[in-house]
Amino acid sequence: MNKTIEFFFDFVSPFGWFAAERIGGIARAHDRNMAWKPLLLGVTVRRVMGLPAVLETPLKGPYLLHDAERCARFYGLPWRPPTPIMFSSVAAARAIIWAVARGDLDDDLGVEALVLGLYRRAWTEAGDISTPDAVAELAASVGFDRAAVRAGIECPETKAGLRASVADAAARGFFGSPFIVVDGEPFWGADRLAMVEQWLVSPW
Amino acid sequence: MNKTIEFFFDFVSPFGWFAAERIGGIARAHDRNMAWKPLLLGVTVRRVMGLPAVLETPLKGPYLLHDAERCARFYGLPWRPPTPIMFSSVAAARAIIWAVARGDLDDDLGVEALVLGLYRRAWTEAGDISTPDAVAELAASVGFDRAAVRAGIECPETKAGLRASVADAAARGFFGSPFIVVDGEPFWGADRLAMVEQWLVSPW
Repeated sequence: MNKTIEFFFDFVSPFGWFAAERIGGIARAHDRNMAWKPLLLGVTVRRVMGLPAVLETPLKGPYLLHDAERCARFYGLPWRPPTPIMFSSVAAARAIIWAVARGDLDDDLGVEALVLGLYRRAWTEAGDISTPDAVAELAASVGFDRAAVRAGIECPETKAGLRASVADAAARGFFGSPFIVVDGEPFWGADRLAMVEQWLVSPW
Repeated sequence: MNKTIEFFFDFVSPFGWFAAERIGGIARAHDRNMAWKPLLLGVTVRRVMGLPAVLETPLKGPYLLHDAERCARFYGLPWRPPTPIMFSSVAAARAIIWAVARGDLDDDLGVEALVLGLYRRAWTEAGDISTPDAVAELAASVGFDRAAVRAGIECPETKAGLRASVADAAARGFFGSPFIVVDGEPFWGADRLAMVEQWLVSPW
Protein backbone atom coordinates (compact mmCIF):
# COMPACT_ATOMS: atom_id res chain seq x y z
CA MET A 1 0.00 0.00 0.00
CA ASN A 2 1.21 3.45 -0.88
CA LYS A 3 1.89 6.08 1.68
CA THR A 4 -0.91 8.48 2.42
CA ILE A 5 -1.47 12.21 2.07
CA GLU A 6 -3.72 13.42 4.88
CA PHE A 7 -6.07 16.22 3.88
CA PHE A 8 -7.78 18.05 6.74
CA PHE A 9 -10.55 20.39 5.61
CA ASP A 10 -13.85 22.06 6.42
CA PHE A 11 -16.61 22.61 3.86
CA VAL A 12 -17.10 26.17 5.16
CA SER A 13 -13.63 27.04 3.82
CA PRO A 14 -13.33 27.94 0.14
CA PHE A 15 -9.55 27.60 0.50
CA GLY A 16 -10.14 23.98 1.49
CA TRP A 17 -12.13 23.67 -1.71
CA PHE A 18 -9.40 25.16 -3.92
CA ALA A 19 -6.95 22.61 -2.55
CA ALA A 20 -9.45 19.73 -2.70
CA GLU A 21 -9.83 20.35 -6.43
CA ARG A 22 -6.15 19.60 -6.96
CA ILE A 23 -4.85 17.38 -4.15
CA GLY A 24 -6.31 14.16 -5.54
CA GLY A 25 -4.47 14.62 -8.81
CA ILE A 26 -1.26 15.45 -6.98
CA ALA A 27 -1.60 12.28 -4.89
CA ARG A 28 -2.15 10.13 -7.99
CA ALA A 29 0.81 11.73 -9.77
CA HIS A 30 3.03 10.80 -6.83
CA ASP A 31 1.57 7.33 -6.17
CA ARG A 32 0.01 8.31 -2.89
CA ASN A 33 -3.32 7.44 -1.34
CA MET A 34 -5.56 10.14 0.06
CA ALA A 35 -6.93 10.29 3.60
CA TRP A 36 -9.85 12.75 3.59
CA LYS A 37 -10.20 14.08 7.14
CA PRO A 38 -12.93 16.58 7.99
CA LEU A 39 -12.44 19.03 10.82
CA LEU A 40 -14.73 21.74 12.16
CA LEU A 41 -13.19 25.21 12.21
CA GLY A 42 -15.96 26.36 14.55
CA VAL A 43 -14.66 23.97 17.20
CA THR A 44 -10.94 24.43 16.60
CA VAL A 45 -10.86 28.19 16.11
CA ARG A 46 -13.41 29.18 18.73
CA ARG A 47 -12.90 26.59 21.47
CA VAL A 48 -9.27 25.50 21.14
CA MET A 49 -7.74 28.77 19.94
CA GLY A 50 -10.20 31.18 21.57
CA LEU A 51 -10.60 33.26 18.42
CA PRO A 52 -13.70 34.59 16.64
CA ALA A 53 -14.75 33.06 13.33
CA VAL A 54 -12.44 34.35 10.63
CA LEU A 55 -15.28 35.91 8.63
CA GLU A 56 -16.29 37.83 11.75
CA THR A 57 -12.76 39.09 12.37
CA PRO A 58 -12.27 42.80 11.55
CA LEU A 59 -10.18 43.48 8.42
CA LYS A 60 -9.37 39.78 7.92
CA GLY A 61 -12.94 38.67 7.18
CA PRO A 62 -13.53 41.13 4.31
CA TYR A 63 -10.04 40.55 2.89
CA LEU A 64 -10.39 36.77 2.84
CA LEU A 65 -13.75 36.95 1.05
CA HIS A 66 -12.22 39.23 -1.58
CA ASP A 67 -9.20 36.94 -1.84
CA ALA A 68 -11.32 33.80 -2.16
CA GLU A 69 -13.28 35.28 -5.05
CA ARG A 70 -10.05 36.40 -6.73
CA CYS A 71 -8.48 32.96 -6.16
CA ALA A 72 -11.49 31.26 -7.74
CA ARG A 73 -10.96 33.36 -10.88
CA PHE A 74 -7.22 32.62 -10.73
CA TYR A 75 -7.86 28.87 -10.58
CA GLY A 76 -10.59 29.05 -13.22
CA LEU A 77 -13.31 27.88 -10.82
CA PRO A 78 -16.87 29.24 -10.81
CA TRP A 79 -17.69 31.34 -7.74
CA ARG A 80 -21.21 31.45 -6.41
CA PRO A 81 -20.88 31.16 -2.63
CA PRO A 82 -23.63 30.01 -0.27
CA THR A 83 -26.09 32.42 1.32
CA PRO A 84 -25.60 32.88 4.19
CA ILE A 85 -21.90 32.34 3.70
CA MET A 86 -21.51 30.90 7.20
CA PHE A 87 -23.31 27.59 7.55
CA SER A 88 -23.08 24.35 9.53
CA SER A 89 -20.78 21.83 7.89
CA VAL A 90 -21.45 19.13 10.49
CA ALA A 91 -23.77 17.01 8.31
CA ALA A 92 -21.41 17.20 5.33
CA ALA A 93 -18.39 16.37 7.49
CA ARG A 94 -20.23 13.40 8.99
CA ALA A 95 -21.03 12.13 5.50
CA ILE A 96 -17.31 12.05 4.69
CA ILE A 97 -16.51 10.26 7.94
CA TRP A 98 -19.20 7.72 7.07
CA ALA A 99 -18.03 7.30 3.48
CA VAL A 100 -14.41 6.77 4.55
CA ALA A 101 -15.37 4.30 7.30
CA ARG A 102 -17.63 2.39 4.89
CA GLY A 103 -14.46 1.18 3.25
CA ASP A 104 -15.99 -1.06 0.61
CA LEU A 105 -14.99 1.13 -2.29
CA ASP A 106 -12.26 -0.07 -4.61
CA ASP A 107 -10.33 3.12 -3.92
CA ASP A 108 -10.96 6.55 -2.47
CA LEU A 109 -12.34 8.04 -5.69
CA GLY A 110 -15.86 7.72 -4.31
CA VAL A 111 -14.92 9.76 -1.27
CA GLU A 112 -13.15 12.32 -3.43
CA ALA A 113 -16.23 12.65 -5.63
CA LEU A 114 -18.35 13.23 -2.54
CA VAL A 115 -15.93 15.83 -1.17
CA LEU A 116 -15.83 17.69 -4.47
CA GLY A 117 -19.55 17.35 -5.04
CA LEU A 118 -20.36 18.88 -1.66
CA TYR A 119 -17.79 21.66 -2.08
CA ARG A 120 -19.06 22.53 -5.56
CA ARG A 121 -22.71 22.46 -4.50
CA ALA A 122 -21.89 24.98 -1.76
CA TRP A 123 -19.42 27.26 -3.54
CA THR A 124 -20.29 27.13 -7.24
CA GLU A 125 -24.07 26.76 -6.97
CA ALA A 126 -24.77 28.74 -3.79
CA GLY A 127 -26.23 25.45 -2.62
CA ASP A 128 -27.35 24.37 0.82
CA ILE A 129 -25.33 21.48 2.26
CA SER A 130 -26.16 22.24 5.87
CA THR A 131 -28.79 19.53 6.44
CA PRO A 132 -28.56 15.73 6.37
CA ASP A 133 -31.23 15.64 3.64
CA ALA A 134 -29.34 18.07 1.42
CA VAL A 135 -26.10 16.14 1.92
CA ALA A 136 -27.76 12.81 1.14
CA GLU A 137 -29.29 14.26 -2.02
CA LEU A 138 -25.90 15.47 -3.23
CA ALA A 139 -24.31 12.13 -2.34
CA ALA A 140 -26.93 10.34 -4.43
CA SER A 141 -25.99 12.53 -7.39
CA VAL A 142 -22.40 11.21 -7.25
CA GLY A 143 -23.36 7.56 -6.93
CA PHE A 144 -24.00 6.90 -3.26
CA ASP A 145 -27.19 5.35 -1.92
CA ARG A 146 -29.29 8.19 -0.59
CA ALA A 147 -30.88 6.27 2.28
CA ALA A 148 -27.57 4.73 3.35
CA VAL A 149 -25.91 8.15 3.49
CA ARG A 150 -28.87 9.64 5.33
CA ALA A 151 -28.70 6.88 7.95
CA GLY A 152 -24.91 6.96 8.06
CA ILE A 153 -24.86 10.66 8.93
CA GLU A 154 -26.95 9.99 12.04
CA CYS A 155 -25.32 6.85 13.36
CA PRO A 156 -23.35 7.12 16.61
CA GLU A 157 -20.14 5.72 15.12
CA THR A 158 -20.14 8.50 12.52
CA LYS A 159 -20.67 11.20 15.11
CA ALA A 160 -17.90 9.78 17.27
CA GLY A 161 -15.66 9.52 14.21
CA LEU A 162 -16.05 13.20 13.43
CA ARG A 163 -15.37 14.17 17.03
CA ALA A 164 -12.20 12.04 16.89
CA SER A 165 -11.10 13.61 13.59
CA VAL A 166 -11.55 17.14 14.97
CA ALA A 167 -9.73 16.23 18.18
CA ASP A 168 -6.91 14.51 16.28
CA ALA A 169 -6.38 17.59 14.12
CA ALA A 170 -6.28 19.93 17.11
CA ALA A 171 -4.01 17.59 19.10
CA ARG A 172 -1.57 17.59 16.18
CA GLY A 173 -1.74 21.39 15.92
CA PHE A 174 -3.78 21.66 12.72
CA PHE A 175 -6.07 24.65 13.02
CA GLY A 176 -7.11 25.67 9.50
CA SER A 177 -8.49 24.44 6.20
CA PRO A 178 -6.78 22.97 4.35
CA PHE A 179 -4.01 21.30 6.30
CA ILE A 180 -2.14 18.91 4.02
CA VAL A 181 0.15 16.42 5.78
CA VAL A 182 2.87 14.59 3.87
CA ASP A 183 4.96 12.06 5.82
CA GLY A 184 4.16 13.93 9.02
CA GLU A 185 4.99 17.35 7.58
CA PRO A 186 2.00 19.73 7.77
CA PHE A 187 1.30 22.47 5.22
CA TRP A 188 -1.44 25.04 5.84
CA GLY A 189 -3.22 26.66 2.93
CA ALA A 190 -4.23 26.11 -0.68
CA ASP A 191 -1.35 28.38 -1.69
CA ARG A 192 1.14 25.82 -0.36
CA LEU A 193 0.38 23.09 -2.90
CA ALA A 194 3.53 23.90 -4.86
CA MET A 195 5.55 23.30 -1.69
CA VAL A 196 3.61 20.10 -1.05
CA GLU A 197 4.54 18.86 -4.52
CA GLN A 198 8.17 19.78 -3.92
CA TRP A 199 8.11 17.93 -0.58
CA LEU A 200 6.70 14.84 -2.29
CA VAL A 201 9.62 14.89 -4.74
CA SER A 202 12.38 15.92 -2.37
CA PRO A 203 11.96 17.21 1.20
CA TRP A 204 14.33 20.01 2.05
CA MET B 1 7.18 58.39 -13.04
CA ASN B 2 6.34 54.75 -12.89
CA LYS B 3 3.44 53.40 -10.95
CA THR B 4 4.16 52.20 -7.47
CA ILE B 5 4.01 48.89 -5.63
CA GLU B 6 3.11 49.49 -2.00
CA PHE B 7 4.77 47.09 0.42
CA PHE B 8 3.38 47.07 3.96
CA PHE B 9 5.50 45.11 6.43
CA ASP B 10 6.66 44.68 10.01
CA PHE B 11 10.19 43.67 10.96
CA VAL B 12 8.80 41.22 13.53
CA SER B 13 7.39 39.16 10.65
CA PRO B 14 9.73 36.72 8.89
CA PHE B 15 7.12 36.40 6.14
CA GLY B 16 7.53 40.13 5.52
CA TRP B 17 11.24 39.44 5.22
CA PHE B 18 10.82 36.60 2.70
CA ALA B 19 8.76 38.92 0.48
CA ALA B 20 11.08 41.90 1.03
CA GLU B 21 13.96 39.84 -0.35
CA ARG B 22 12.14 39.50 -3.68
CA ILE B 23 9.69 42.37 -4.13
CA GLY B 24 12.32 44.94 -5.15
CA GLY B 25 13.48 42.74 -8.02
CA ILE B 26 9.90 42.11 -9.09
CA ALA B 27 9.24 45.86 -9.12
CA ARG B 28 12.32 46.54 -11.24
CA ALA B 29 11.41 43.75 -13.66
CA HIS B 30 8.01 45.36 -14.18
CA ASP B 31 9.18 49.00 -14.24
CA ARG B 32 7.55 49.87 -10.97
CA ASN B 33 8.72 52.01 -8.08
CA MET B 34 8.55 50.70 -4.54
CA ALA B 35 6.77 52.37 -1.63
CA TRP B 36 8.13 50.83 1.59
CA LYS B 37 5.44 51.24 4.26
CA PRO B 38 6.05 49.98 7.79
CA LEU B 39 3.14 48.94 9.94
CA LEU B 40 3.03 47.60 13.49
CA LEU B 41 1.28 44.27 13.88
CA GLY B 42 1.09 44.83 17.62
CA VAL B 43 -1.20 47.80 17.01
CA THR B 44 -3.25 46.36 14.15
CA VAL B 45 -3.72 42.83 15.46
CA ARG B 46 -4.24 43.64 19.12
CA ARG B 47 -6.04 46.97 19.04
CA VAL B 48 -7.90 47.02 15.72
CA MET B 49 -8.67 43.31 15.36
CA GLY B 50 -8.82 42.42 19.05
CA LEU B 51 -6.66 39.30 18.63
CA PRO B 52 -3.64 38.02 20.57
CA ALA B 53 -0.20 38.16 18.98
CA VAL B 54 0.05 35.39 16.43
CA LEU B 55 3.03 33.76 18.16
CA GLU B 56 0.96 33.61 21.35
CA THR B 57 -2.04 32.04 19.59
CA PRO B 58 -2.52 28.34 20.40
CA LEU B 59 -1.66 25.96 17.53
CA LYS B 60 -1.04 28.81 15.08
CA GLY B 61 2.02 30.23 16.85
CA PRO B 62 3.99 26.96 16.88
CA TYR B 63 2.94 26.12 13.30
CA LEU B 64 4.01 29.50 11.92
CA LEU B 65 7.43 29.27 13.55
CA HIS B 66 7.93 25.82 12.03
CA ASP B 67 6.66 27.09 8.68
CA ALA B 68 8.92 30.16 8.73
CA GLU B 69 12.02 28.03 9.32
CA ARG B 70 10.94 25.64 6.55
CA CYS B 71 10.25 28.59 4.20
CA ALA B 72 13.70 30.02 4.89
CA ARG B 73 15.24 26.73 3.77
CA PHE B 74 12.90 26.66 0.75
CA TYR B 75 13.98 30.16 -0.30
CA GLY B 76 17.63 29.43 0.44
CA LEU B 77 17.85 32.06 3.18
CA PRO B 78 19.83 31.63 6.40
CA TRP B 79 17.65 31.27 9.51
CA ARG B 80 18.90 32.48 12.85
CA PRO B 81 15.95 34.29 14.43
CA PRO B 82 16.19 36.88 17.19
CA THR B 83 16.08 35.96 20.88
CA PRO B 84 13.55 36.68 22.20
CA ILE B 85 11.66 36.17 18.98
CA MET B 86 9.12 38.86 19.87
CA PHE B 87 10.70 42.30 19.97
CA SER B 88 9.78 45.94 19.43
CA SER B 89 10.04 46.97 15.81
CA VAL B 90 9.12 50.61 16.47
CA ALA B 91 12.65 52.03 16.16
CA ALA B 92 13.31 50.08 12.95
CA ALA B 93 9.96 51.10 11.48
CA ARG B 94 10.65 54.75 12.33
CA ALA B 95 14.00 54.53 10.58
CA ILE B 96 12.23 53.46 7.38
CA ILE B 97 9.68 56.26 7.70
CA TRP B 98 12.59 58.70 8.14
CA ALA B 99 14.59 57.28 5.23
CA VAL B 100 11.59 57.44 2.88
CA ALA B 101 10.70 61.00 3.96
CA ARG B 102 14.32 62.11 3.57
CA GLY B 103 13.76 61.80 -0.15
CA ASP B 104 17.17 62.96 -1.35
CA LEU B 105 18.19 59.58 -2.62
CA ASP B 106 18.48 59.03 -6.35
CA ASP B 107 16.05 56.14 -6.07
CA ASP B 108 14.65 53.91 -3.40
CA LEU B 109 17.58 51.50 -3.39
CA GLY B 110 18.87 53.12 -0.21
CA VAL B 111 15.59 52.42 1.53
CA GLU B 112 15.53 48.86 0.20
CA ALA B 113 19.07 48.29 1.48
CA LEU B 114 18.00 49.54 4.89
CA VAL B 115 14.89 47.33 4.93
CA LEU B 116 16.91 44.26 3.95
CA GLY B 117 19.78 45.12 6.27
CA LEU B 118 17.47 45.38 9.27
CA TYR B 119 15.56 42.22 8.34
CA ARG B 120 18.76 40.22 7.87
CA ARG B 121 20.31 41.50 11.08
CA ALA B 122 17.23 40.31 12.96
CA TRP B 123 16.49 37.01 11.20
CA THR B 124 19.83 35.73 9.88
CA GLU B 125 22.13 36.95 12.65
CA ALA B 126 19.80 36.73 15.67
CA GLY B 127 20.56 40.42 15.95
CA ASP B 128 18.95 43.08 18.09
CA ILE B 129 17.19 45.81 16.09
CA SER B 130 14.88 46.89 18.90
CA THR B 131 16.72 50.05 19.98
CA PRO B 132 17.43 53.31 18.14
CA ASP B 133 21.16 52.79 18.66
CA ALA B 134 21.10 49.29 17.16
CA VAL B 135 19.05 50.52 14.19
CA ALA B 136 21.39 53.47 13.58
CA GLU B 137 24.40 51.16 13.71
CA LEU B 138 22.88 48.86 11.10
CA ALA B 139 21.89 51.83 8.95
CA ALA B 140 25.49 53.08 9.03
CA SER B 141 26.63 49.68 7.74
CA VAL B 142 24.51 50.14 4.59
CA GLY B 143 25.64 53.69 3.91
CA PHE B 144 23.46 55.97 6.00
CA ASP B 145 24.82 58.59 8.39
CA ARG B 146 24.59 57.10 11.85
CA ALA B 147 23.90 60.36 13.68
CA ALA B 148 21.30 61.47 11.13
CA VAL B 149 19.43 58.19 11.45
CA ARG B 150 19.66 58.29 15.25
CA ALA B 151 18.18 61.80 15.27
CA GLY B 152 15.65 60.98 12.57
CA ILE B 153 14.20 58.09 14.57
CA GLU B 154 13.40 60.45 17.44
CA CYS B 155 12.04 63.43 15.54
CA PRO B 156 8.29 64.17 15.90
CA GLU B 157 7.65 64.09 12.16
CA THR B 158 8.99 60.53 11.99
CA LYS B 159 6.86 59.38 14.89
CA ALA B 160 3.77 60.99 13.35
CA GLY B 161 4.66 59.44 10.00
CA LEU B 162 4.73 55.94 11.46
CA ARG B 163 1.40 56.48 13.24
CA ALA B 164 -0.06 57.64 9.92
CA SER B 165 1.35 54.61 8.06
CA VAL B 166 -0.13 52.20 10.61
CA ALA B 167 -3.47 53.99 10.55
CA ASP B 168 -3.51 54.10 6.73
CA ALA B 169 -2.89 50.35 6.55
CA ALA B 170 -5.67 49.57 9.04
CA ALA B 171 -8.09 51.99 7.37
CA ARG B 172 -7.50 50.23 4.06
CA GLY B 173 -7.99 46.83 5.67
CA PHE B 174 -4.37 45.64 5.63
CA PHE B 175 -3.75 43.62 8.78
CA GLY B 176 -0.70 41.44 8.18
CA SER B 177 2.87 41.38 6.96
CA PRO B 178 3.47 41.53 4.11
CA PHE B 179 0.61 43.25 2.34
CA ILE B 180 1.58 43.97 -1.25
CA VAL B 181 -0.65 46.43 -3.10
CA VAL B 182 -0.59 46.65 -6.90
CA ASP B 183 -2.85 49.26 -8.52
CA GLY B 184 -5.09 49.17 -5.49
CA GLU B 185 -5.28 45.37 -5.35
CA PRO B 186 -4.01 43.99 -2.02
CA PHE B 187 -2.24 40.64 -1.64
CA TRP B 188 -1.48 39.22 1.81
CA GLY B 189 1.47 36.93 2.31
CA ALA B 190 4.89 36.08 0.96
CA ASP B 191 3.33 33.05 -0.71
CA ARG B 192 1.30 35.35 -2.97
CA LEU B 193 4.24 36.82 -4.91
CA ALA B 194 3.49 34.59 -7.90
CA MET B 195 -0.02 36.05 -8.02
CA VAL B 196 1.43 39.55 -7.63
CA GLU B 197 3.66 38.96 -10.64
CA GLN B 198 0.70 37.64 -12.63
CA TRP B 199 -1.37 40.70 -11.63
CA LEU B 200 1.46 42.98 -12.82
CA VAL B 201 1.39 41.29 -16.21
CA SER B 202 -2.35 40.82 -16.59
CA PRO B 203 -4.97 41.31 -13.87
CA TRP B 204 -7.71 38.70 -13.99
